[in-house]
Amino acid sequence: MTTRTRILTGITTTGTPHLGNYAGAIRPAILASEDANADSFYFLADYHALIKCDDPQRIQRSRMEIAATWLAGGLDVNRVTFYRQSDIPEIPELTWLLTCVAAKGLLNRAHAYKASVDKNVENGEDPDAGISMGLYSYPVLMAADILMFNAHKVPVGRDQIQHVEMARDIGQRFNHLFGNGKEFFTMPEALIEESVATLPGLDGRKMSKSYDNTIPLFTSAKDMKDAISRIVTDSRAPGEAKDPDNSHLFTLYQAFATKAQEQEFRDELLQGLGWGEAKNRLFQLLDGQLGEARERYHHLMSRPSDMEDLLLVGAKKARAVAAPFLAELREAVGLRSFVNQAAAPVATKKKAAKAARFVSFREDDGSFRFRLLAADGEQLLLSRNFADGKAAGAATKQLQSGDALDVRTHALSFSVWLDGAEVADSAEFSDDASRDAAIEALRVALTPIED
Amino acid sequence: MTTRTRILTGITTTGTPHLGNYAGAIRPAILASEDANADSFYFLADYHALIKCDDPQRIQRSRMEIAATWLAGGLDVNRVTFYRQSDIPEIPELTWLLTCVAAKGLLNRAHAYKASVDKNVENGEDPDAGISMGLYSYPVLMAADILMFNAHKVPVGRDQIQHVEMARDIGQRFNHLFGNGKEFFTMPEALIEESVATLPGLDGRKMSKSYDNTIPLFTSAKDMKDAISRIVTDSRAPGEAKDPDNSHLFTLYQAFATKAQEQEFRDELLQGLGWGEAKNRLFQLLDGQLGEARERYHHLMSRPSDMEDLLLVGAKKARAVAAPFLAELREAVGLRSFVNQAAAPVATKKKAAKAARFVSFREDDGSFRFRLLAADGEQLLLSRNFADGKAAGAATKQLQSGDALDVRTHALSFSVWLDGAEVADSAEFSDDASRDAAIEALRVALTPIED
Repeated sequence: MTTRTRILTGITTTGTPHLGNYAGAIRPAILASEDANADSFYFLADYHALIKCDDPQRIQRSRMEIAATWLAGGLDVNRVTFYRQSDIPEIPELTWLLTCVAAKGLLNRAHAYKASVDKNVENGEDPDAGISMGLYSYPVLMAADILMFNAHKVPVGRDQIQHVEMARDIGQRFNHLFGNGKEFFTMPEALIEESVATLPGLDGRKMSKSYDNTIPLFTSAKDMKDAISRIVTDSRAPGEAKDPDNSHLFTLYQAFATKAQEQEFRDELLQGLGWGEAKNRLFQLLDGQLGEARERYHHLMSRPSDMEDLLLVGAKKARAVAAPFLAELREAVGLRSFVNQAAAPVATKKKAAKAARFVSFREDDGSFRFRLLAADGEQLLLSRNFADGKAAGAATKQLQSGDALDVRTHALSFSVWLDGAEVADSAEFSDDASRDAAIEALRVALTPIED
Repeated sequence: MTTRTRILTGITTTGTPHLGNYAGAIRPAILASEDANADSFYFLADYHALIKCDDPQRIQRSRMEIAATWLAGGLDVNRVTFYRQSDIPEIPELTWLLTCVAAKGLLNRAHAYKASVDKNVENGEDPDAGISMGLYSYPVLMAADILMFNAHKVPVGRDQIQHVEMARDIGQRFNHLFGNGKEFFTMPEALIEESVATLPGLDGRKMSKSYDNTIPLFTSAKDMKDAISRIVTDSRAPGEAKDPDNSHLFTLYQAFATKAQEQEFRDELLQGLGWGEAKNRLFQLLDGQLGEARERYHHLMSRPSDMEDLLLVGAKKARAVAAPFLAELREAVGLRSFVNQAAAPVATKKKAAKAARFVSFREDDGSFRFRLLAADGEQLLLSRNFADGKAAGAATKQLQSGDALDVRTHALSFSVWLDGAEVADSAEFSDDASRDAAIEALRVALTPIED
């Protein structure tokens, strides 16, 4: 078990990140992931995006833009687990298991839902008018996101604290009903970063797409310049002293400047720097800080298959955690394989001791092959095609003889060799650890039992 | 495309089937599946079971008992698709896609939910007291069950008609939002079998576990005899004429008798057959009709791994339909691979024409392999390990030369041979059709392009 703190962050894929998202969420999260004690999970919350958005082009574009933004911003995918929610089929399945234990009354109390109801009532409409089941039940999906990876900390805005509490509530209920004393789920805690500033937008209100006051992050320098030129300032002329503490242009500058740069800019404003020139300074600062990342961003956007590969690797990493955990949860609720689960509980124990076995079969073309199956029926090896049954039989005999096995490890699989020729290979595994575990299982299976 | 009518039936796995379930649902459904025009899907609705039952042992036992009952009753798994709902991960995923388009107001109107609310209100409780999200949102799961397989007909009791209508409503909305004129989902119709009698139980009310008046189906002959002896009759003594039309003992007999047997029994009752002897006749009839099936049932229950294998085959059949369909639906809502989906829509068209390509790589043990990837990145072939790069290169060259390909078809995969030796093989496919499509794709990919 890792002793690192597992931190989980989802980013809903409906828009294009702007400067405010970057300074307020992306940059601090990337910094936090560099902490040696952090085990960070970042995911593109594209199942969540479907709740708000029925424009497939926009969802697809946003997924790519947000992925490219995180990567361009310096997220180290070797250090963190970075994945698309929709690449993890275990998430919707866990969502259903949690749906069955979540109280409807709990969901009635969710702020986002209640706000929509209040608005409907105010307008004299049916309380649930225009509300989808997606909006209503998304705290259950969010609970699945969090509980699936047993996250300790979930950095969220104040409006999301309640959903982390709901995840605790639902997780606790599952633990209670099915755990038999075992705590399947870690109780997550909301992490509120009080120190992270909310950046002001062009008009001084919080920078937000809904106010149309954002500064673009990675589009062209020209667009960024244009946006900056629209920042609202007071009417003081060049030469007149400006008040940095009441200028959101200064607040924006501050968010990206070193202490020395900040001091210098403050002094110049007090000494009467014109707003036009001040805007130019802000542009230079941002362009200098973001220029390289912008290049990385456009490079990534022009190579979608590189991002695809990278996200599929992330999905493999995430599923290596999610799949065995879900298997455990399915077992807990009674969705079990029938094998070794005989109806009469008394008869079950001995069967598990059954050894691995070779099963040979003939292909349609007349060639012979064999499989080696573990006691639980899992396939350990599939052989090459042999021209005749004798050759196949000789190979299985040699493997059973207890001689030292010639196992060769490949990227995510392994092969078994006899006399310098490959005779059989394994399936592809999701990671090195599963592959190595299978090799170990193979060695055990092929070790003759001593009396 | 099949022109057969697709019929879908789910059986919730919370109890043990009794005689009433058998005569009222199981037997007619099995008969209906023998119709050459029917394409039947039967599934163990174990995700639904979780809504009502948090006893994992009971869920597991019921899944096995219900599977064994259908099989013992004569369900021909080669003719139908018989699977466990929880073996199809596409189902909970589709459930989420549908959750995002289902109106909350629609679910508010579901009878089962409304009945629970009414009871709470009557008792002076909060309307949603004790109601789980599972109960509330299960019509969405049921819609996914039905729409996933584009069922035409869904045989249901009267209380379930509304849920089939909800499936239509939700499916229609999805078609409208994402279909661009295409109808992804077939509109299902509820099929009410008016002719199927509801069997009376021991006390004359409908045979139901909740009235504790059932006759066991496949437990011991003794238990069946005991239950029959408890059937409530009137007080007429042996020798007195009985009224068959007001006797539920006679109704039960009728449900299993031939016309001739029925007539004979009727005559005997009219002639004063004693109730004790009449019960004995009923037992003989049932035991004669069900004795063989009971043996099959117990044989199946003693060999859970045979049932497991059979259900896994069923899951493969079902997923061969569900997986490609879900991929289409994901594409429709915007959950797409980044590859060949460049951000600028203009740039996408040409890329798809890119040909298949060989990618060679070196394994950790120093051997060489290659993959053949289709234009869309799908792996068509993975080669054996070659001792050196030259040998691997020669093999790819030979494959590219346009000579006739030596492809050998196996159960669910294929291999490619050069000079009498196997050099590469495919992944395992879910069915013959997918395998053959991949072989076709391989041939196309390896055909040299002529100018």
